[in-house]
Amino acid sequence: MKKMILDIDTGVDDAMALAYAAGAKEVELIGVVGTYGNVYTKQGVTNVLNLLEMLGRTDVPVYLGEEHAMKKDYFDRLEISAKIHGQNGVGEIPLKTAQREVESIGGVDFIIDAIKKYGSELTIVATGPMTNLGMALQKYPEMSNKIGQVVIMGGALTVPGNVSPFTEANISQDPEAAKLLFESGTPIVMVGLDVTMRSVLQYSDTNRWRETGSPAGRNYADIVDYYIHIHEEIAPFLNGCCLHDPSAVAAAIHPEYFTTLPLYMTVETDGPSVGRTIGRTEKLREKNPNVSVCIGVDSEKVVADLCETLETLFKK
Amino acid sequence: MKKMILDIDTGVDDAMALAYAAGAKEVELIGVVGTYGNVYTKQGVTNVLNLLEMLGRTDVPVYLGEEHAMKKDYFDRLEISAKIHGQNGVGEIPLKTAQREVESIGGVDFIIDAIKKYGSELTIVATGPMTNLGMALQKYPEMSNKIGQVVIMGGALTVPGNVSPFTEANISQDPEAAKLLFESGTPIVMVGLDVTMRSVLQYSDTNRWRETGSPAGRNYADIVDYYIHIHEEIAPFLNGCCLHDPSAVAAAIHPEYFTTLPLYMTVETDGPSVGRTIGRTEKLREKNPNVSVCIGVDSEKVVADLCETLETLFKK
Repeated sequence: MKKMILDIDTGVDDAMALAYAAGAKEVELIGVVGTYGNVYTKQGVTNVLNLLEMLGRTDVPVYLGEEHAMKKDYFDRLEISAKIHGQNGVGEIPLKTAQREVESIGGVDFIIDAIKKYGSELTIVATGPMTNLGMALQKYPEMSNKIGQVVIMGGALTVPGNVSPFTEANISQDPEAAKLLFESGTPIVMVGLDVTMRSVLQYSDTNRWRETGSPAGRNYADIVDYYIHIHEEIAPFLNGCCLHDPSAVAAAIHPEYFTTLPLYMTVETDGPSVGRTIGRTEKLREKNPNVSVCIGVDSEKVVADLCETLETLFKK
Repeated sequence: MKKMILDIDTGVDDAMALAYAAGAKEVELIGVVGTYGNVYTKQGVTNVLNLLEMLGRTDVPVYLGEEHAMKKDYFDRLEISAKIHGQNGVGEIPLKTAQREVESIGGVDFIIDAIKKYGSELTIVATGPMTNLGMALQKYPEMSNKIGQVVIMGGALTVPGNVSPFTEANISQDPEAAKLLFESGTPIVMVGLDVTMRSVLQYSDTNRWRETGSPAGRNYADIVDYYIHIHEEIAPFLNGCCLHDPSAVAAAIHPEYFTTLPLYMTVETDGPSVGRTIGRTEKLREKNPNVSVCIGVDSEKVVADLCETLETLFKK
């Protein structure tokens, strides 16, 4: 079992990543940190608490992460985020309010404590902006050589961004935090648009969840159908929705599904291409790059494993 | 033996690529087309004729290619090109004037005729701007499914460019031609900065050529030493010169030295990142991409094979 923390901005695809991690037999989910991005941090935390209760996983503690980028003192949710994920972040589907509440210690401190406690056994899967990890690195720089690995959904190396031609949404929210993370030496698996847009979920997949007959199955099917529907407008060539955040969980538990390029990476923090994730030419010949960039994926396996894991979870 | 045409703008590293192809036992060099870029086309053709005679390869015909980009009616050589390659393109080393002259038919027509004659047996290695290939495609679009493959030195997918943060020198000269080539469906191996800056040649390598005692060995050592010297200024982290153009010949004859990413590619032809070579998101899920992007290389093998092939050639 892999000890895992999710650091997510829930968000429809985050909700899928959450259920995937909650249901995967390979994962011991020791906590979830909420962050901003697809939603405001507080809404994201609420969504996580509600989803976990719906999934029967009230054993998992939830923490409040940062509410804005490291170099900003505010976060304004983009209109497009409300459109893609729904106003409430979970496809406008009303969820029952959970009984469990958010923990009293903050998300960044929880991350640091967990790294101190579990060290190389710990995987953090971050599917929102990298702010919590950047803050943790500032407070506890030693984490970079203590943690097992950080798997991020973020960036785009071989294809254009989705917020601008240069930057992907998660990185764009806090390029400074992402740069700090990439250049810290932390072992990172980068799951960017290079692979997340290769794996597609369709209505026929969500229907399998609905047909479990459970409230969780029905609700998840409805939440993701909202997301598939919006993809007909924003990415009609896909014939479904792409699997951004669940792909990061897949890369954490099934690295064999992916092909990777070892590369020293950085993030541009100014200029016209701010937020671009790109290799560092001057380190091309250095050994043992800390970042493994996912550049290929067995999409059928990702989709199948996600769908089956959720179906099994919804039947419980 | 692989039938090969070189399409080059000679240039120091083109001169290395020329000797590599001229000396490689795997290659039947059926002709060389000169183009603009590192030098003006006429200077490049003169350099090729002189180098081939010095190498004892007066059997190889040389053709005059295009003199400027497809959408321009002029070409001004960049000052940096004169600095990197020397005013004469071959490191300020004076070469004996060849007796053989340039062929009377043009480079583009030679390329088309050769494709018609040799079809899938033919490999074109292009280490300058893609203009000759773009013009050939305009005159003879069927070439894209008749030719064996085109191996280009050009572009940068996983690292920044070397002319701007977005574009590599060869692509930057004629982004329209490169876009036409990438999107034509032609089988392409892209050998960009991703790999060419991983393979480095040092003074100790060129010394082996000098020690052959032959005029060709001494001249090539002097030419490349000029190039290594300039790298101490433009890329001091390399401790030598990178092997841009020879890497394309290496990829043509030793594909096993490289790891590749199959990808549908395009080139941006306007905006702030004009000349950027990047994957096409909308075609990420389509089968059989026509471009194999070199993303990894066994640099030691490239350097060793290049050095040994040239040393053997210089001893003849």
